[in-house]
Amino acid sequence: MTETPILPLDEGVVALTAAMVDIASVSGDERMLADAIERVLSIHAPHLTVLRDGDAIVARTALGRAQRVVIAGHIDTVPVNANLPSRLEGDAVTGTLHGRGTVDMKGGCAVMLALAVALDAPAYDVTWVWYDHEEVEASLNGLGRLARTRPELLAADFAILGEPSNAGVEGGCNGTLRVELAATGRRAHSARAWMGVNAIHALAPALDLLARFEPATIEVDGLAYREGLNAVGVRGGVAGNVIPDDAVLTVNYRFAPDKSVAQAEQYLRDLFGGVAPEMTLTVTDASGGARPGLDAPLAQHFVAAVGGTPAPKYGWTDVARFAELGIPAVNYGPGDPSLAHTDDERVPVEQIIACERGLRAWLSGA
Amino acid sequence: MTETPILPLDEGVVALTAAMVDIASVSGDERMLADAIERVLSIHAPHLTVLRDGDAIVARTALGRAQRVVIAGHIDTVPVNANLPSRLEGDAVTGTLHGRGTVDMKGGCAVMLALAVALDAPAYDVTWVWYDHEEVEASLNGLGRLARTRPELLAADFAILGEPSNAGVEGGCNGTLRVELAATGRRAHSARAWMGVNAIHALAPALDLLARFEPATIEVDGLAYREGLNAVGVRGGVAGNVIPDDAVLTVNYRFAPDKSVAQAEQYLRDLFGGVAPEMTLTVTDASGGARPGLDAPLAQHFVAAVGGTPAPKYGWTDVARFAELGIPAVNYGPGDPSLAHTDDERVPVEQIIACERGLRAWLSGA
Repeated sequence: MTETPILPLDEGVVALTAAMVDIASVSGDERMLADAIERVLSIHAPHLTVLRDGDAIVARTALGRAQRVVIAGHIDTVPVNANLPSRLEGDAVTGTLHGRGTVDMKGGCAVMLALAVALDAPAYDVTWVWYDHEEVEASLNGLGRLARTRPELLAADFAILGEPSNAGVEGGCNGTLRVELAATGRRAHSARAWMGVNAIHALAPALDLLARFEPATIEVDGLAYREGLNAVGVRGGVAGNVIPDDAVLTVNYRFAPDKSVAQAEQYLRDLFGGVAPEMTLTVTDASGGARPGLDAPLAQHFVAAVGGTPAPKYGWTDVARFAELGIPAVNYGPGDPSLAHTDDERVPVEQIIACERGLRAWLSGA
Repeated sequence: MTETPILPLDEGVVALTAAMVDIASVSGDERMLADAIERVLSIHAPHLTVLRDGDAIVARTALGRAQRVVIAGHIDTVPVNANLPSRLEGDAVTGTLHGRGTVDMKGGCAVMLALAVALDAPAYDVTWVWYDHEEVEASLNGLGRLARTRPELLAADFAILGEPSNAGVEGGCNGTLRVELAATGRRAHSARAWMGVNAIHALAPALDLLARFEPATIEVDGLAYREGLNAVGVRGGVAGNVIPDDAVLTVNYRFAPDKSVAQAEQYLRDLFGGVAPEMTLTVTDASGGARPGLDAPLAQHFVAAVGGTPAPKYGWTDVARFAELGIPAVNYGPGDPSLAHTDDERVPVEQIIACERGLRAWLSGA
């Protein structure tokens, strides 16, 4: 048996982040970090009711407040690539912490853990959630599992997800739809090409449309969502001397949260149907977006407390799971999301400190 | 040891074709058929000098004629697919012979064998060649091997290849060039597509050109060669949520024999360079065409003797190997080339009979 590591609570949130980063927790291998978090809570947070579900941990206050908020973060990372242990460049106030998970999203998880222990009487009841399997296929997602099997644990009036947002509030998220556009033809020997019908050539109108397409920017609840429409895969061909009889273009549509998945699908059907009606369109993957939900009073209090101007979130995040549960949700966490998953993942420590200060101010009723 | 089958010489060329079809000889497994041919020649053709080279057989007259012709055919087939043994539908004069190799090209091989035995004093010296490994990669080709290792055996003033041509004379052949057009881009998460450059989208101009392209028909030595320009493969994509940074379109150009390989390559560089100068073009495979060579006196005698109007050959055949050796060459054999390699490969037997009659007339000095 491996001993559960002890996480440092007295050295500040940056040291706590570094310690959590240094417990590698690639998806599927989160147990040691989950054990360490559970141990801290059981020793230092008697004001919380702690539940364990697989490698997810749910810790709740029960103060009888009028409103409850969920504050959640995933503890898994994408695979390590020679970027552990963490490395602090500069000092613990102005420096930069490097390493896998520093951005996505152990800074957020450390802020949560520090405040879960420190705040025994927050202004709202709080449900703290650390969960597993966010970086792999959606069916394994720990938050999704809780939503399916124990939805009462997630009941709340507002939710904050500690995903990296450069320590600003990023509201909602775009939806994502992946479709396959398939063209068919008739095989023939390429020496007598006129006897066949070339399915790869039949992709031309759809590909031309994509190359010329100018994606929209759509305002939803006051935030501007930039859409994207891109080929992410193409395949076709039988042999070097055969006119191919089928070819497939895979397209990913990132759509603003003013549209449902069904509306996004219809949009693509109309768009591609207009230039290539003979192609078939098959949806292979779909996740709805989430409206920013910044009109909720709790959200407005939150934004006022942490400061700054809310921005849209482009990538799909688990805020959409809260949206599905009818809970307004925003992203708020340290780190630049465009550095997530990169080998040189790194976070300015001042963003970790800022997030702790912001959340603390709000939860203290400031 | 397996006994060498005995091929029937006395039942006509259709029965001989059927017997040769029934000795399966998929590329690499030609030995039994080669043995059977060698045995017939050694017993029944004392007027020929017979040489064996691997599973190729070269049988030559040495009559001191002023001119020599090569008459050649490959004895291998593509894989059998439940289409052996052969099956004669109808009678041996007007019927149809079904089975693997009936078209490509045991009818031609049987015509050659019947005449090699029967004609002990042809009007020209004749070099009969049955060879192996035509249906697989070019480096294994038995005719190519002889051209490299024993070119003196192939010396001639004119060559006839018994490839299927519907019993008509098909002159020369188109060349073939295969190129890869590669586009590069910059990876990014598809949620923030504007940070990347989509390599699949960069294929659009080239694919659009192909879809709109109208291939030329070019007259060479009096025959009209129909060209072809086709995508035969396309690939690209990293993952469903990544803007891809490279994509490749594979294009096959079948070009008339008025152009060299170098000229065909330059043509493609100019064509695609005009619409997509940032793509790279790499030649992956090239074989020159062959001019029909019908202006040679021997070719004119041959055409007059067998009758009909010469037509162009579209597919690449080993006539191009003779063209490389400086020997005018044509295709002349029973069977519809568009049925070659199909599971329902079949030949009208009257074409086999017609080819035997035509070659016999010419070689008899008619």
